[in-house]
Amino acid sequence: MLMLGALMTVSSVSAAQEKEIPRVIVFDTFGTLVDWRSSLIRYLTEFGRERGVNADWTKLIDAWRAQYMPSLNNIRNRERPWATLDELHRASLEKLVTAHGINVLSRDDLDYIVNGWHKLTPWPDTVPGLSRLRRKFIVGPLSNANVSLLVDLAKFGGLPWDMVLGSDVFEHYKPDREIYTGIGKFFKVSDSAVMLVAAHNNDLGAAKSFGLMTAFIPRPTEYGPEQTTDLKPENNYNYVASSVEDLAQQLGA
Amino acid sequence: MLMLGALMTVSSVSAAQEKEIPRVIVFDTFGTLVDWRSSLIRYLTEFGRERGVNADWTKLIDAWRAQYMPSLNNIRNRERPWATLDELHRASLEKLVTAHGINVLSRDDLDYIVNGWHKLTPWPDTVPGLSRLRRKFIVGPLSNANVSLLVDLAKFGGLPWDMVLGSDVFEHYKPDREIYTGIGKFFKVSDSAVMLVAAHNNDLGAAKSFGLMTAFIPRPTEYGPEQTTDLKPENNYNYVASSVEDLAQQLGA
Repeated sequence: MLMLGALMTVSSVSAAQEKEIPRVIVFDTFGTLVDWRSSLIRYLTEFGRERGVNADWTKLIDAWRAQYMPSLNNIRNRERPWATLDELHRASLEKLVTAHGINVLSRDDLDYIVNGWHKLTPWPDTVPGLSRLRRKFIVGPLSNANVSLLVDLAKFGGLPWDMVLGSDVFEHYKPDREIYTGIGKFFKVSDSAVMLVAAHNNDLGAAKSFGLMTAFIPRPTEYGPEQTTDLKPENNYNYVASSVEDLAQQLGA
Repeated sequence: MLMLGALMTVSSVSAAQEKEIPRVIVFDTFGTLVDWRSSLIRYLTEFGRERGVNADWTKLIDAWRAQYMPSLNNIRNRERPWATLDELHRASLEKLVTAHGINVLSRDDLDYIVNGWHKLTPWPDTVPGLSRLRRKFIVGPLSNANVSLLVDLAKFGGLPWDMVLGSDVFEHYKPDREIYTGIGKFFKVSDSAVMLVAAHNNDLGAAKSFGLMTAFIPRPTEYGPEQTTDLKPENNYNYVASSVEDLAQQLGA
């Protein structure tokens, strides 16, 4: 019994030592930190009421988000020159409003709607969790959004970033290698000292394949009440946490 | 008298209207926001005492800073490939310690000394002034320092940045045009909506020549008690302020 107890102690100390600690922690933003879908539904419903425009805004928003990956891939494949996420949002919105039979919107209306992506509400645990992590680590976004969009989101939601390096700094979109490994280059640390936190298995899978540490936080209602994807970690991540605050707890911050 | 009073009112209203307001405010950092010289003297004096190394640290620091522009110019002229300010600080320190007869320092000692540039104390008005400006404007550094150095400085001194775009984002050093005009590109605003705040006439002169707004804040002891340069604005700037807090006041923040 004494020997077994000693062995167990050694084994648990060794497990704790094996749990690596990152130097820099970066966060996927849409979905992982901010509730883009509910925020946009509120924003567009309010806009429709004030402007007297009737439309199925939820359907429009879901269709808009469905254009996200295809529009990024056009850039990633070099089919078109670099454009920011704001510009891609604008271009896909213009096509979608016509397809959805919403033909009464002015240029200013479209600008206003695109700007909805700059005013997204954080999940309740986001700001308290980041504030704790920031005391011990360098924290910033690792998002497909451009710097100005990320800065607006941070000011709107009170996200306490140490730095904001958007996709336009790298001129690459996730899941390109260059954006994941760009963070370590700026901070002169190895990729294995950088941890990506995300609610999306594909994002974390890419980060892991490029040598970053990874942490999964499920956001089971990001895509609405009937979400079926990304409910669980589908890979072996360094951390799995129920919230940003839980992650801070696990990292001793 | 009545007519003169009316004219004076019109004229002062029109002057107030002419005073332009920027969208994004960026700050030179060394000297303008942080007191690098006193901080480094304290840091190295303490280091020398602990390590038992006797040297004229103030003389070393002044010589180190004198290497600043020449080392940047080597990069600006493309005489050597891009290197960060941390790397340039390290290279010039290695030469200087030998020249100053300080031959007892290990590699770790040199790393420790270079890291002194990451631990510089802000002037007393810096943090309260930035905190006020941040409520109304997007604020960030516009410095020759690299991102990681600027992030460390911000964490050390509590500088409340919205974004940290270092010279390594642009791969250009001031006074190259690309670093001044890079900010407007990221924020999709014209250069005339970006204001540089600095304690140095040459920096502000360059910014002005590239179309930025400018604000001068004198730091008459930056280079020590016998400073003779940059005591006054030597050009026509949009704002002249006695402190960052005074600038916030003038901008209604």
